[in-house]
Amino acid sequence: MPSFSLTSLLRTPAPQRLVRFLAKDGRIYYGDALLPRGVTNIAQATQARIVRGSIFGQHTVTDDVADIRTLLSPLAPEDVKTVRCLGLNYALHAKESGMALPKYPVLFYKPATSLAGAHDPIPVPPVAQEGEGLDYECELVAVIGKTCRDVSEADALNFVLGYAVGNDVSHRDWQIKRGGGQWNVGKGFDGWAPWGPGIVAAKLLDPQTLNISTKLNGTTVQESNTSDMIFSVRQAIAFLSRGTTLQAGDLIFTGTPSGVGMGRKPQLWLKDGDVVEVSLEGVGSIVNKVEFAKEKSKL
Amino acid sequence: MPSFSLTSLLRTPAPQRLVRFLAKDGRIYYGDALLPRGVTNIAQATQARIVRGSIFGQHTVTDDVADIRTLLSPLAPEDVKTVRCLGLNYALHAKESGMALPKYPVLFYKPATSLAGAHDPIPVPPVAQEGEGLDYECELVAVIGKTCRDVSEADALNFVLGYAVGNDVSHRDWQIKRGGGQWNVGKGFDGWAPWGPGIVAAKLLDPQTLNISTKLNGTTVQESNTSDMIFSVRQAIAFLSRGTTLQAGDLIFTGTPSGVGMGRKPQLWLKDGDVVEVSLEGVGSIVNKVEFAKEKSKL
Repeated sequence: MPSFSLTSLLRTPAPQRLVRFLAKDGRIYYGDALLPRGVTNIAQATQARIVRGSIFGQHTVTDDVADIRTLLSPLAPEDVKTVRCLGLNYALHAKESGMALPKYPVLFYKPATSLAGAHDPIPVPPVAQEGEGLDYECELVAVIGKTCRDVSEADALNFVLGYAVGNDVSHRDWQIKRGGGQWNVGKGFDGWAPWGPGIVAAKLLDPQTLNISTKLNGTTVQESNTSDMIFSVRQAIAFLSRGTTLQAGDLIFTGTPSGVGMGRKPQLWLKDGDVVEVSLEGVGSIVNKVEFAKEKSKL
Repeated sequence: MPSFSLTSLLRTPAPQRLVRFLAKDGRIYYGDALLPRGVTNIAQATQARIVRGSIFGQHTVTDDVADIRTLLSPLAPEDVKTVRCLGLNYALHAKESGMALPKYPVLFYKPATSLAGAHDPIPVPPVAQEGEGLDYECELVAVIGKTCRDVSEADALNFVLGYAVGNDVSHRDWQIKRGGGQWNVGKGFDGWAPWGPGIVAAKLLDPQTLNISTKLNGTTVQESNTSDMIFSVRQAIAFLSRGTTLQAGDLIFTGTPSGVGMGRKPQLWLKDGDVVEVSLEGVGSIVNKVEFAKEKSKL
């Protein structure tokens, strides 16, 4: 007979603010971040209750508390499936990009190898130091929690584990001028999708009411609200799941508002050493430093 | 002391023709296909030596032979990472598509959920029955066998596990007219990347010398040779690995030659019940039947 009782279920609800972290004991855990009263930025958590088990299966939020040394990409590589991204999903951003408003959601992908954590550097390899156009994009990230297909808009949020904030780092020359029209090369380099600081449970947030912003070296450069999305999270999930299985562990980067470097006059490109902070209300901030590689990496 | 001796290593080389299959005993195995002398089409294999262990780690080709009931997608879902695809990689196909020759490889993605096996149907959900433009694309598929990054063209093929043939099923309206310029929606539905019939070890084939073709209901509609690729497999791997980790289990669909339905006069679109066979010399054929869904699938 399993030792898992109704009582233990009641004592162990789903994580409210799921984090993955290197603890001071040198081990990596999933955890439920503990925040001081009044604090909502998960990046300020110094402790978390350890979560044991499979994040997309049976798991338990324990009473064991660990000290956080470093927040990591909120899902382990083996727990992430496909990373989908929407383009031109805020009206003002479509305008600043010189593009027409899309009739349907515009889909591109990032490989899972582009994911990184809340404080990881953004590595810029030599190929992405060519040309110009290194840019930031703050985005709400929706995490699919249950495998689904052909989902209605009404049901869509029931399949969401929660929300995080991400930076869809982009190289405009590779994205737009050198990609043969396809955006993927300019967006898929290793570490070009930092996200976090953790995943706030879906039931705690309305994803269409959140302030979202970017600071570059401390100066606000993007400032909007997810209410301005052209396709809401519900609509995006319904659309993307038509004839297509969304798997537990899929991520959806839901597009960026206006204020990207490409749309500014004069244009503003990230440089070696720049610090980019992207923030989402109710979730928190991630802060990543741009690091130009000095030579070809050897793997 | 491990029981794995030099002698056993010599008796158990890497699989020459890796297949994954449902056996007559009702179980699913990886295997090394056994082919009669003179036969190169893996789809004709009726038996395989069972491979035990991790395909991208330690594994052994055993002397245990199983009877093949059905060939499956050659890699298990948990063994596949990212599926990259090249567009416009044969000169005549770029011309028939009305597109300029690309200066750099054109990259798009398919989700792993689009993969299917050698004899699986191609399911067409209601959303892909809208508009017109259901099309076939025969392609050489390169399977990355060892994780790598910043690979030179000279070294590139050392990281390839082997080659298969795939069909990059595409819906031209969703790909070109409704995607906001991004091709992904029209190429990513469940089951829209059948591939197989197995993976021929890289050392057995020169990937730039192989006849490649498509038959639609028995009539040849694409017929070319991989020597006509604009970017060779070596060049594609070197390009795609710049600043980007390619993982063991990544697939690269390397583009299709001319003769697709979109490029024909009059245009030729797949219909419910059509049978599509794509073939690659030295590897074999996969044969997939187009099946229009009658109603929304319930997952």
